[in-house]
Amino acid sequence: MSDLQFRRATAAGIPGIVAMFADDGLGRGRETPDDLAPYYAAYERVAADPGQHLTVAERDGRLVGVLQLTVVPGLSRRGATRSIIEAVRVHRDARGTGLGTRLMEWAIEESRRLGCTLVQLTSDTARTEAHRFYERLGFSGSHIGFKLQL
Amino acid sequence: MSDLQFRRATAAGIPGIVAMFADDGLGRGRETPDDLAPYYAAYERVAADPGQHLTVAERDGRLVGVLQLTVVPGLSRRGATRSIIEAVRVHRDARGTGLGTRLMEWAIEESRRLGCTLVQLTSDTARTEAHRFYERLGFSGSHIGFKLQL
Repeated sequence: MSDLQFRRATAAGIPGIVAMFADDGLGRGRETPDDLAPYYAAYERVAADPGQHLTVAERDGRLVGVLQLTVVPGLSRRGATRSIIEAVRVHRDARGTGLGTRLMEWAIEESRRLGCTLVQLTSDTARTEAHRFYERLGFSGSHIGFKLQL
Repeated sequence: MSDLQFRRATAAGIPGIVAMFADDGLGRGRETPDDLAPYYAAYERVAADPGQHLTVAERDGRLVGVLQLTVVPGLSRRGATRSIIEAVRVHRDARGTGLGTRLMEWAIEESRRLGCTLVQLTSDTARTEAHRFYERLGFSGSHIGFKLQL
């Protein structure tokens, strides 16, 4: 585990990241690993936005995980800055190794370092295993996550 | 209704915004309208971040509502940009007038204009009336919202 590294994603990492997105029960139907053009365009938007921290985990130089941390300053809760975690994925070959926990612990610590006092994420109601995982990390499933597709 | 206006919040609007945050069952315990310093500091962070759209609704020049729209570019879902709505409040005097709906419709339209293909928000499980409101607007409560206080 000693060689696990977290670093900013680069454009070169996109094929591997998208492959992880697509290798997932829910992602399979909504990602297009054979057409990467929209992902490269999106990467430019992410990289240009200082509030976005798209992060990959590498072990022995191989991509094993990804997540996106978004820092959101706000007025409510006495001017709390919160972080939002999206797109958490662990490579199939790295599952069951504790990497998901390491990745989330990194994201929580990074949120603290960036001045956040609240970390939040939403998880599809179908991902019951993930819910237990987030609860073990100390998260409370206190909210309902609403989405509207435009 | 014809004079309802939506515009960027300014620092001058902070006392009124915080009063709305505090005039709420959940907000009462976590906001400090008598100590506005943390809110002014937070406002500077919000105003400096191009992804944040802190918006007030005014009617006859009076503050009647607020919400914060955050634009989050990302790689998942074929590089979808999503918007996140936080801190939606309608002034006590303006409740029952359809303002909440107008405010949310504005936020949805603004999200579309800003290139978002998904709008999301979380609502405390205790706010059951709000849940029906979001569902009437077309939102689906498909996710669990997890939070971790740091």
